[in-house]
Amino acid sequence: MKNLGNLFVLSGPSGVGKDAILERLLRGVPNLVKSISVTTRPRRTGEEDGKDYFFVDEETFKKMIERNEFLEWAIVHSYFYGTPKNFVEKNLKEGIDVLLKIDVQGGLSIKKIIKNAILIFIIPPSLEELKKRLLKRDSEGKEDFNIRWKNVPLEISKIFYYDYLVVNSDIDSAVEEVKAIIFAERCRLTKEKAEYWINKLGGKIDEGTINR
Amino acid sequence: MKNLGNLFVLSGPSGVGKDAILERLLRGVPNLVKSISVTTRPRRTGEEDGKDYFFVDEETFKKMIERNEFLEWAIVHSYFYGTPKNFVEKNLKEGIDVLLKIDVQGGLSIKKIIKNAILIFIIPPSLEELKKRLLKRDSEGKEDFNIRWKNVPLEISKIFYYDYLVVNSDIDSAVEEVKAIIFAERCRLTKEKAEYWINKLGGKIDEGTINR
Repeated sequence: MKNLGNLFVLSGPSGVGKDAILERLLRGVPNLVKSISVTTRPRRTGEEDGKDYFFVDEETFKKMIERNEFLEWAIVHSYFYGTPKNFVEKNLKEGIDVLLKIDVQGGLSIKKIIKNAILIFIIPPSLEELKKRLLKRDSEGKEDFNIRWKNVPLEISKIFYYDYLVVNSDIDSAVEEVKAIIFAERCRLTKEKAEYWINKLGGKIDEGTINR
Repeated sequence: MKNLGNLFVLSGPSGVGKDAILERLLRGVPNLVKSISVTTRPRRTGEEDGKDYFFVDEETFKKMIERNEFLEWAIVHSYFYGTPKNFVEKNLKEGIDVLLKIDVQGGLSIKKIIKNAILIFIIPPSLEELKKRLLKRDSEGKEDFNIRWKNVPLEISKIFYYDYLVVNSDIDSAVEEVKAIIFAERCRLTKEKAEYWINKLGGKIDEGTINR
């Protein structure tokens, strides 16, 4: 039988390590692709257009909104971010799981549109650790840090809406936990799967062939 | 924070390989214990009292029912089977996950009593394969085989009530899948966890210390 793919949403405060986790998942989990978001925020050192994000200007972004090209879009930390609709829908239809790194606003919007999206929240072991990681980013100025830091309580307060929580104290364990979530969700029973297997196993019991 | 343990229910038709999976899980997953059921069915070759089951006679079993010592009990394949209450409750309270191998009737009873029990159904890749595995059991007579084989459609038809489905084509993959389910469920967000982390991370944002 052919199953539809799952959409996994990865959220968590800036600096918690979402990108590092995501990169390792893409290398370690078969049948999984990353949805690349479109954004108007400036590119950070080391980021590639079309790999990390599609970097566009505000005018282009607004045209994409008009053409209904986003599954969801939002303004976060004063920049536009959007999830291209076609890519996600095409992969899910083909049975490929899609990983989407997105802020909490976006995550909650996605859950409204794709009911069985699986929402995973990554948190730091402590605020001190988060601040340390954020301050290490030398690609961004202090102003940027302050915007991100201010958003932390708002993001954390949305934990309640998420399905899973992964504490990123240690990157190896965090990756293993997200992997387990992905593999477990692939085993989740859906109506279609149950029907398929009941037909395959339940409807064919042939007592006549048993050697009594 | 101290989390409560999860109760994992492992069901599936006789011969599907539940015991082999269970044994490997107990060896490979920390913080996991097996609930040992009480039964009136005869001991199979190689089975140990107090390890595989507590083997008792019908009179003893009925006294345990009267004394309310079971979380649930049922008659399966014409024998009594019961889950001792104390052991399960004690471990869950201590934050230890409990694995319970039980038939579908039992699984559904458990789900009514322990709402957040996680129900995992193990199925064979095909009926032919299941029959082959069942017939290999030389500890049991043909009569026993026939009773078990007759029960297969009834058990399979209960798939719908389960949370997860694991196809046991290959024991290694099946074990890995159940492991993933256990590790994923340990990451599942509960109200208690969300509150704990919001308090820990959200209530303490100290903007005053940020060097602007």
